[in-house]
Amino acid sequence: MVALHHRDGHHGWDRRLPPVTEIVSGDEVELVLADCFDGQLEPDARPEDVADLDLDRANPLTGPIRIAGAQPGDVVAIEVLEVAPAAFGWTALIPGFGLLADDFPAPHVVASRIGAETTAFGAVAHLPTRPFLGTVGLAPGEDGPLSVIPPRRVGGNLDSREVRPGATLLLPVEAEGGLLSVGDAHATQGDGEVCGTAVETAATAHLRIHVWHDLHLDAPEIDLPATSGRPRGPRHLTTGVGPDLYEGARAATRAMIDHLMARHGLAPEDAYALCSVAAHLRILEVVDAPNWVVGLDLDTSVLV
Amino acid sequence: MVALHHRDGHHGWDRRLPPVTEIVSGDEVELVLADCFDGQLEPDARPEDVADLDLDRANPLTGPIRIAGAQPGDVVAIEVLEVAPAAFGWTALIPGFGLLADDFPAPHVVASRIGAETTAFGAVAHLPTRPFLGTVGLAPGEDGPLSVIPPRRVGGNLDSREVRPGATLLLPVEAEGGLLSVGDAHATQGDGEVCGTAVETAATAHLRIHVWHDLHLDAPEIDLPATSGRPRGPRHLTTGVGPDLYEGARAATRAMIDHLMARHGLAPEDAYALCSVAAHLRILEVVDAPNWVVGLDLDTSVLV
Repeated sequence: MVALHHRDGHHGWDRRLPPVTEIVSGDEVELVLADCFDGQLEPDARPEDVADLDLDRANPLTGPIRIAGAQPGDVVAIEVLEVAPAAFGWTALIPGFGLLADDFPAPHVVASRIGAETTAFGAVAHLPTRPFLGTVGLAPGEDGPLSVIPPRRVGGNLDSREVRPGATLLLPVEAEGGLLSVGDAHATQGDGEVCGTAVETAATAHLRIHVWHDLHLDAPEIDLPATSGRPRGPRHLTTGVGPDLYEGARAATRAMIDHLMARHGLAPEDAYALCSVAAHLRILEVVDAPNWVVGLDLDTSVLV
Repeated sequence: MVALHHRDGHHGWDRRLPPVTEIVSGDEVELVLADCFDGQLEPDARPEDVADLDLDRANPLTGPIRIAGAQPGDVVAIEVLEVAPAAFGWTALIPGFGLLADDFPAPHVVASRIGAETTAFGAVAHLPTRPFLGTVGLAPGEDGPLSVIPPRRVGGNLDSREVRPGATLLLPVEAEGGLLSVGDAHATQGDGEVCGTAVETAATAHLRIHVWHDLHLDAPEIDLPATSGRPRGPRHLTTGVGPDLYEGARAATRAMIDHLMARHGLAPEDAYALCSVAAHLRILEVVDAPNWVVGLDLDTSVLV
């Protein structure tokens, strides 16, 4: 198995960056990930430390990983086998960033202690620990350097809490070899990530990578496994990535209709009606300007 | 207990409509509700029947119910005790209506057989039966007649699937006496109601109504009870109602911060950060033009 450290990494996206390794479809990788602040915050961090953050070091990524045979128009499927967070995490209000940036001009930080089951969010809350990867992306098809903050149709900083162990993230390829990079682990997060940060933490991630030549996507999609609870699944999520939530909802719905037609043989009218009665529109992130992520989430076990 | 039939009802909102009954805070009501098509579709409905629908008869409401002592600035709390749907329901693609109206110009209909546990959605899917009330509203403060289609800050056609048995819907009062009307039951629906209709059905609803003089809200909120599953709750939902999803997300987040400060004593910065790590932005409906409903959903059992 290929093991990579964030020393083997980069800031921002650029398809011209030399790959740090090359794998073939079916390979597994183990990645050591820095947190989104690149280690600049300590467990006793104070608001002044947030004000002093060097944001040019935000979201350091481990990679790029070249995947042999991945061509523009293919899909890279990233199966998340494990995300093991560190013992500490931070949630920061960063001036100028977040859904209510105008209401909260001052820096603030809440440090969390991350346990296997529960994360102590300051002295405020006890949250179920539910780790996932905030940034999993392929290199965009245009030359960089491009900002790491907005997610794109090739993924990236999706900040979508379903990119978690058990999930398979499907990303359309734009650059020769895909050029996968990963970072920005979160110990937990709500849909929307409204203040702009989750419980940000360093982590180790274990992934299995496949190339699919027979599927073509306009945006990221996520397959989620069956569970014992509700929704019992398996589930399929489509997404719309862009600067307008309404258009994102439309794109995600169109993608789900396409999925239901291609994979389950539904007529388009029935697929659209089924989305209305059984699928759920979620605002997965609304802070990574200028692109938000809307998801449409369907438990496909309802299908006859 | 007051019992009302949809014969005692109206189309559209108007605070000048005479109340069909008057209750006091703490009273229970039992309401017989027509479906949103006012009984125009039969179990064997065909697309032509959808094309022939008289849409002036859409969303007939049972009411208005005057609530003694409810004054502008108060809150009416509607506790949903039971929603018993009929045996049949319909999901229609209505030309010109829905998130993808331009992609689907032709009428279409899927008839469902509604069972206690499962709803057979045509021959397409078996859905968990999860009945709720699509329209629960107070009279707007301006003179009508006003369209029943868009929800407003006083509620109305919220089409939000959490207005279900066990929930308490909180609505700000604009008109003297509140003037509550109810209709548009759904056997089940996804967040968004993307095609514009749910599994639309007639129903009987059993509600308990209170007036709260000591709470002031800008928009509807929903309290949900604890359950044995995840999220375990109790949960609180705030909403943003309006024509822009981004502004709706901001309004819902501000309302949750206010709730966490007022009810749980959190500092505003901690409340905002908690929303980011634990609360979920949901698009509850995106079809009742011109107003969409964004919800922010927090399991308050996480609070220390």
